[in-house]
Amino acid sequence: MDYSFTIKQIAEQIHGTVIGDASRIITKPSSLEEGSNDTIAFADNARSLQKAQDADLGALIIPEKMSMNINETTVIKVAVPRLAFIRVLNMFKQPHTVYEGIHPTAVISKTAQIGKNPHIGAYTVIEDDVVLGDNTVIYPHVYIGKSVHIGNNGELHHSVSIYPYCTIGDRVIIKAHSVIGGEGFGYFQDSGKHYKVPQIGTVMIKDDVHIGSGTCIDRATTGTTIIGNDVKIDNLVQIAHNCSIGDHTIIVSQVGIAGSAKIGKHCMIGGQVGIADHAELDDEVILLARSGVSKVRVKKGRYFGAPHKPAIKAARIEAVFGKLPQMAQDIQDIKKQLNKNNQ
Amino acid sequence: MDYSFTIKQIAEQIHGTVIGDASRIITKPSSLEEGSNDTIAFADNARSLQKAQDADLGALIIPEKMSMNINETTVIKVAVPRLAFIRVLNMFKQPHTVYEGIHPTAVISKTAQIGKNPHIGAYTVIEDDVVLGDNTVIYPHVYIGKSVHIGNNGELHHSVSIYPYCTIGDRVIIKAHSVIGGEGFGYFQDSGKHYKVPQIGTVMIKDDVHIGSGTCIDRATTGTTIIGNDVKIDNLVQIAHNCSIGDHTIIVSQVGIAGSAKIGKHCMIGGQVGIADHAELDDEVILLARSGVSKVRVKKGRYFGAPHKPAIKAARIEAVFGKLPQMAQDIQDIKKQLNKNNQ
Amino acid sequence: MDYSFTIKQIAEQIHGTVIGDASRIITKPSSLEEGSNDTIAFADNARSLQKAQDADLGALIIPEKMSMNINETTVIKVAVPRLAFIRVLNMFKQPHTVYEGIHPTAVISKTAQIGKNPHIGAYTVIEDDVVLGDNTVIYPHVYIGKSVHIGNNGELHHSVSIYPYCTIGDRVIIKAHSVIGGEGFGYFQDSGKHYKVPQIGTVMIKDDVHIGSGTCIDRATTGTTIIGNDVKIDNLVQIAHNCSIGDHTIIVSQVGIAGSAKIGKHCMIGGQVGIADHAELDDEVILLARSGVSKVRVKKGRYFGAPHKPAIKAARIEAVFGKLPQMAQDIQDIKKQLNKNNQ
Repeated sequence: MDYSFTIKQIAEQIHGTVIGDASRIITKPSSLEEGSNDTIAFADNARSLQKAQDADLGALIIPEKMSMNINETTVIKVAVPRLAFIRVLNMFKQPHTVYEGIHPTAVISKTAQIGKNPHIGAYTVIEDDVVLGDNTVIYPHVYIGKSVHIGNNGELHHSVSIYPYCTIGDRVIIKAHSVIGGEGFGYFQDSGKHYKVPQIGTVMIKDDVHIGSGTCIDRATTGTTIIGNDVKIDNLVQIAHNCSIGDHTIIVSQVGIAGSAKIGKHCMIGGQVGIADHAELDDEVILLARSGVSKVRVKKGRYFGAPHKPAIKAARIEAVFGKLPQMAQDIQDIKKQLNKNNQ
Repeated sequence: MDYSFTIKQIAEQIHGTVIGDASRIITKPSSLEEGSNDTIAFADNARSLQKAQDADLGALIIPEKMSMNINETTVIKVAVPRLAFIRVLNMFKQPHTVYEGIHPTAVISKTAQIGKNPHIGAYTVIEDDVVLGDNTVIYPHVYIGKSVHIGNNGELHHSVSIYPYCTIGDRVIIKAHSVIGGEGFGYFQDSGKHYKVPQIGTVMIKDDVHIGSGTCIDRATTGTTIIGNDVKIDNLVQIAHNCSIGDHTIIVSQVGIAGSAKIGKHCMIGGQVGIADHAELDDEVILLARSGVSKVRVKKGRYFGAPHKPAIKAARIEAVFGKLPQMAQDIQDIKKQLNKNNQ
Repeated sequence: MDYSFTIKQIAEQIHGTVIGDASRIITKPSSLEEGSNDTIAFADNARSLQKAQDADLGALIIPEKMSMNINETTVIKVAVPRLAFIRVLNMFKQPHTVYEGIHPTAVISKTAQIGKNPHIGAYTVIEDDVVLGDNTVIYPHVYIGKSVHIGNNGELHHSVSIYPYCTIGDRVIIKAHSVIGGEGFGYFQDSGKHYKVPQIGTVMIKDDVHIGSGTCIDRATTGTTIIGNDVKIDNLVQIAHNCSIGDHTIIVSQVGIAGSAKIGKHCMIGGQVGIADHAELDDEVILLARSGVSKVRVKKGRYFGAPHKPAIKAARIEAVFGKLPQMAQDIQDIKKQLNKNNQ
């Protein structure tokens, strides 16, 4: 890392109140665990404050209403430490290379409409009738198919594929190698042979969506696969044709969501979860990692296991598994005892 | 959607008999659930016909031998509604851009043989001794390694990678970012260090195979990894070295098949299933989603769970799980009771 | 395959002693199962020697101290048959095309430092301040972001993405479409909206690491995601921000490792395993395929199941599952019996 700031400089950026030595030099942000006397971290609850006691930090961001007394650490009080820490991270973020303008090797159809202030990397291909918003960053080797619409202030990273006729909102970030709008996996079987069902629908990705690397979101058979506003999707996720994902839902890595599943708003889908076709999740469903949901409706709550169960119930069942060999033995012993008693 | 047809026009294309108003305008195909009075859908069993009763469709395709009386919906009778609906979808499918000829930026070895009527997109790279069949569509940024043979009428989508010496049949579709023929994951361990086993075999993909996006099929150590005719593979699937997949088998998203596993014909492998190395599946094995198969032989049948069990048995076991905490308690109570009785 | 060698030629390369006819022609290496009278295979334990008895091989490599009497097969004795067989495979390996020098279409920043004897394929993009070691092979369509450092004698295959500021050691092989250094999946929630946590850390990949196709390794929030020396990672693996993977560890396909997990040295992580954030694996932990580890510490040993258990215990529990419906019935019967006895 090449940057350094005084605590005073940082406190100004995050509108914080300094308690302690404001002239100290901070060379990087850190976690509490990896802190040292030239790093800055944050704590916003009792547990993390406790951890911070043991960390030899240069500076610690805490909530306004909390108090903290650490000999060697300067404290900065702010309204919301987590959001302040995001600003600090941005202060220290080193620049990525982004092409200014349109790289001469980009192959762009004459019928494409490119917005103001474009950043289009080398060898990117943009097909007919694409509409690209303002300030959107396109890395090298991206493919944007016919008639795709992309909003403002977004990012398409290296080698992203957008199939034709898809729509992408504002401030959408799609990381390297993700594929949007591939044909859904639909076949009709007749006499043992499979006939491909053409997938003539599209994908609509709304505003503020982030999509990880290597994730696939398939176009609808008819109609639209929908990714709601502020949805965040991790790497290597599969979202099949005709799914709809409600606003603000979080989908962790390697999740698979089968065709026509409907996911509510503010859901939390843990890593490696599988959701069957036509399943329906209400708002605020939490599926812990590796859970499996069959073709059912799931009400608001916290679930675990495959098939999924309320998390508390799943834990109770899991607690019995270890006793099963003994239980099987006990039953045999009891049966013998009863036989003996009844003779 | 920009297209519209009269029901008469559609019925002619699908060789159907119209019952009702043939002059109505249809603007798109739909599912039964999303139907409206300008859409066309199909129904081919009692359950879907029931659904169709409640849908306010413009037109409904049904089997010749069924009858249906819906006030406001025109009916089209055909031999096989599912196949007729595929034709309807194709009528409404909007065109994708496909490059006519060979894009001037494509880098093609002088020793490559390109078939008739090529469609080779921008920046694609084709190495020495490649043989490419007629009418095959290659999207931008594809890489075709040395001596790869590809048949006629296929499609390689954006950024597909084909490693050297692989063979691909006719009418094969490979979606964006899939990787065919990477070296299998093979190491010999000696004194705690790993030595890479060179994978000198190849991959053979037979006719009419479809491969989703982001799927990886590794080349064999020696010999050939084989994907049979009419096999359909979804997104983000892993098929390891020396596997063989029988004709007409379906593999859903995120499945992992480990080295040297042999899968029979007409199998159905559900999403997120894992199959161990050297496992053998007979023909017509159905593995429900998220099942796991260890290094065993699996006979024709329907299975669920990890380790897999006959689906009916798995359901019976699953049904007991919810009772386990009570069962554990019952056993304790019984033991106490018996102790008391025996005193 | 186009190559053939006499057994004498092969034995010379692997420093072996021939017993039998050294003049026979071998046209390819094979497994024992696929052997024929012109192939060479190896056997190094009782079980594989038994298999070799039934295989009609041209030549068989065995350990010096073993003896073997097969009428029709020539035997070659060597110190370590597995390592000798790697040499044999390399003798028969057909060449892949590698660009000699820097392809004229590669877009390379003037501030990038390219080592001796480069092989940089068509349309690859190398950004500012990249440092590339000697003899490293870069396939077409690769993207190497700003300030990435890459060592000597490595390979980056088709369309690999390396985000800025990552460090890659010597002799590292990264297969097609893998993504190194994408921003980790980190969000702070405030009033129901998600705020992206900038991931300003990096990824460090040490020497002799191999990474499969379609694998994603995310950069750290702060600090470094570390992949140790001689780590081998298969296809479609997810390694989240701030993980560290110990030297010589093996990670099989479709594994997911969540943020800040620490994996020891010489571990073996089976296919489709999931490891929760902040989990800690000691050295020499073996996780069988599809196991799941929650946020705990795991000591040296062999584990199976989700949540993971010692493999022997997991097998004992699994053995009871099949009896569960009968056990439930038994308990009901026993209760009835006791009620009757007590009346």
